Amino acid sequence: MKELAKLLERIVQRVNINLRELGFDVTPYVANLVPPAQMLKFYAFYGISPNHPLNFQFRHTSLAGSYFLGKCQVTNSLLYKSDIRGDELKKKGDLFQCQGFEIPIQKDEEINIKDSFLIKTLVHSFSHDLETPEEFFIRDTIATHYSNIHGSPIDGCFLGPFVTVDLTTIHDCVVGAFSYIQAGEISHLSFKPGTVWVRNPGVFNFLYKYDPQELSKYIYFGPGSRPQGLFIDFVEDRQEAFQRVFDVVNLEPGIPVPRNASLDRFAVVKPHTLISENVLVAQRAYVQNSFLGKGANAQENCYIINSWLEGNDVTAHGAKIIEADLGSTVFVGFNSFLKGTPESRITIGNDCIIMPHTIIDVKAPLTIPEGSLVWGLVTNQKELAENSVSLDELSQVDSYFSKGAMCFEGSGKKFVEAFTYRIHHILEANGALYDGNKNMGHAQKNQRIAFNTIQPYTLGDSEGLYPTIIIQP
Amino acid sequence: MKELAKLLERIVQRVNINLRELGFDVTPYVANLVPPAQMLKFYAFYGISPNHPLNFQFRHTSLAGSYFLGKCQVTNSLLYKSDIRGDELKKKGDLFQCQGFEIPIQKDEEINIKDSFLIKTLVHSFSHDLETPEEFFIRDTIATHYSNIHGSPIDGCFLGPFVTVDLTTIHDCVVGAFSYIQAGEISHLSFKPGTVWVRNPGVFNFLYKYDPQELSKYIYFGPGSRPQGLFIDFVEDRQEAFQRVFDVVNLEPGIPVPRNASLDRFAVVKPHTLISENVLVAQRAYVQNSFLGKGANAQENCYIINSWLEGNDVTAHGAKIIEADLGSTVFVGFNSFLKGTPESRITIGNDCIIMPHTIIDVKAPLTIPEGSLVWGLVTNQKELAENSVSLDELSQVDSYFSKGAMCFEGSGKKFVEAFTYRIHHILEANGALYDGNKNMGHAQKNQRIAFNTIQPYTLGDSEGLYPTIIIQP
Repeated sequence: MKELAKLLERIVQRVNINLRELGFDVTPYVANLVPPAQMLKFYAFYGISPNHPLNFQFRHTSLAGSYFLGKCQVTNSLLYKSDIRGDELKKKGDLFQCQGFEIPIQKDEEINIKDSFLIKTLVHSFSHDLETPEEFFIRDTIATHYSNIHGSPIDGCFLGPFVTVDLTTIHDCVVGAFSYIQAGEISHLSFKPGTVWVRNPGVFNFLYKYDPQELSKYIYFGPGSRPQGLFIDFVEDRQEAFQRVFDVVNLEPGIPVPRNASLDRFAVVKPHTLISENVLVAQRAYVQNSFLGKGANAQENCYIINSWLEGNDVTAHGAKIIEADLGSTVFVGFNSFLKGTPESRITIGNDCIIMPHTIIDVKAPLTIPEGSLVWGLVTNQKELAENSVSLDELSQVDSYFSKGAMCFEGSGKKFVEAFTYRIHHILEANGALYDGNKNMGHAQKNQRIAFNTIQPYTLGDSEGLYPTIIIQP
Repeated sequence: MKELAKLLERIVQRVNINLRELGFDVTPYVANLVPPAQMLKFYAFYGISPNHPLNFQFRHTSLAGSYFLGKCQVTNSLLYKSDIRGDELKKKGDLFQCQGFEIPIQKDEEINIKDSFLIKTLVHSFSHDLETPEEFFIRDTIATHYSNIHGSPIDGCFLGPFVTVDLTTIHDCVVGAFSYIQAGEISHLSFKPGTVWVRNPGVFNFLYKYDPQELSKYIYFGPGSRPQGLFIDFVEDRQEAFQRVFDVVNLEPGIPVPRNASLDRFAVVKPHTLISENVLVAQRAYVQNSFLGKGANAQENCYIINSWLEGNDVTAHGAKIIEADLGSTVFVGFNSFLKGTPESRITIGNDCIIMPHTIIDVKAPLTIPEGSLVWGLVTNQKELAENSVSLDELSQVDSYFSKGAMCFEGSGKKFVEAFTYRIHHILEANGALYDGNKNMGHAQKNQRIAFNTIQPYTLGDSEGLYPTIIIQP
């Protein structure tokens, strides 16, 4: 394990150099975060499919349990059970339209991970950086449990657990646990845990901060210890169910899957689940005793338990939906935690937007009227009133709006439009809108992918390190 | 499957060009030998171990179910459930001593398979060709079910089922089913089925030919049909048992394995089997209700059923031992078929040599005295007398000796010495002689190898073809 230890040391040093201005030392956070022996226990894997042009290049890495689909290079890095998708990377010949620019794409975009340590991190979609449209880079970065690096080139950062950086280019920042950052381009900032920030410079700015005390019950990550709290307990309680899907080479789905739907063979689906047409259940999704209506999707690291999703619902990466009934076209954002009980279910009307990183944790039934936007911590009807607004009302805002711990500036109309447009895009990309002919998406394309396993050296100085692996068409 | 079909066509053409002088057309033998859909059904795999320096390079191939351990390149080839070992390849800095030459090895030897179609073929050990000591090449060759290309660079050949080419460089030859060829260097020859030929030019020459009628009961391969006979039925009857070991990712051995022994995780071991120290059970070996004494080995594609192996016994690639009791240091050569029954067991004394490609198939008990050499077809005590000789007697021969259908010329002493030396080498290489300190071999080294799986494209024109795969240290 000698080389593995040296590799980790080297990454820690590089991240610390990037964060020196912020005076942040990652060392006490990283020590023992993943016991070295764990790096040996899980095979990594990559998908072979003619729908996803191949280029995997792994050099001097440990990849325990990680998953690769699109073009990706990993160098001098440790990935632990990370999920590196890449099936939405731009392709040569595409026209990248963003912020009024139209950029012709000269070569297939690739994910490029260097000198980084990612733990259970999801990396997905594509670089939203106009400056590097053909490279989705992740450099000199440590991202901890269940963070999402989503469309966000990142360099010199430390992400706490359950952090999401979304559509943002981010340099030399520290992002505290459960923060959600969607801000265009930022650098040299430090975010406290539970910051939810959505900004389109000059157009709108949404900011909510969790009360640290309240948040720490759900997730707390201090120096010298591993992440703690209800979120961690919740996922650890269900970890065993995943063991089986990784232990068996060919796994037949235990339930019927319509031809236009996709149930990933690395998802867990427990009894009394119904999968309708155009549904996508991604790998490492967990669905139990639930109904997924037509076009609903269950993305990576999400949990859907004892719930009803009417149709065209989005359960984003890391979202949890427990004992809830969702109308159609409900969006539940990244890492949101919706926890009802059998006696106190959560009912969510059509076309609601549950903002990323929302916690709804109720002991009495809760009903969210259709067309609402919900954010922050909601444990009862009163807090719902403080932490939600109707999309219609928000659309009227054109300068400033505040409610509870949330502040909004700018155009409410543009904010609602941006969200609505994005939800439509997500449904489209995932194949929810497939009509048997047009609008094919992941649910239809991500089928019959062959998964090849890769493992590290099991002995000697290189123990835990993977050999050089190059896979091309 | 378009590209797969073109690849096979191309290989067939190349082999036919090599065999044009012999007027042999492989086409009717190859058509439908492996249904194309089979090429999709099995993952191939390669071992990652610090004891086996890595260099795998697979380009434009289909590798269904094949296994790779040592350095190997495969290009424009179809391999179907082949076993490409390579853990005895020469290493940079070695001195290759052969036929009085001492050749310094300049670079690690590699297996290089090009433009070939191998079906369940075993490729093992290293190039015995003085002219290409650093490349064990296999080119423009079709090798069918359970053939062994053993230490034998080969070019432009067609090997029938259960053929072994051993320590021989062979160009543009057709080798009929169940023939065993160990002859130094040969070209432009055609061998009838059941030819057993061991030659050291100028030193000795051993020749036995099976009666075609009698052999066809065991193995027959004609144009337009697949190989048939008892050998095929025997392995097919036991194929299902292998399914399980390939279906499960991590398989714990069901029986105790001493620390100095090695039971491959892709072997089948059925109840009431005992594995002693220094035993090697290779992948795709099948052991059932048998005792493997200290230092015994069970090599690839061998079957040991209801048998007792006292210790230091060699069960070579493809050998079958059923209802037999072996003394110590008994050698059972390639593809030999020893079939007793519960009422008529085969008893083999110490230090016997059962020549490669021997068939012992009895309906009454048979006893082979210690120190015997046995060859050919033996179905009763009388035939044993015709098809065996004591090693002592053979050692006296210095010009000519004939018995039954066997002719021997040259030095019997040298012949016995060569065999005895080789058996010692095999035991040594396999770790049978390990004393806890010295003489470490495969049984001790082939442990804790991580196996990575590889699979082909499952859709489109490339269906069944593997991507380019490069694995290096």
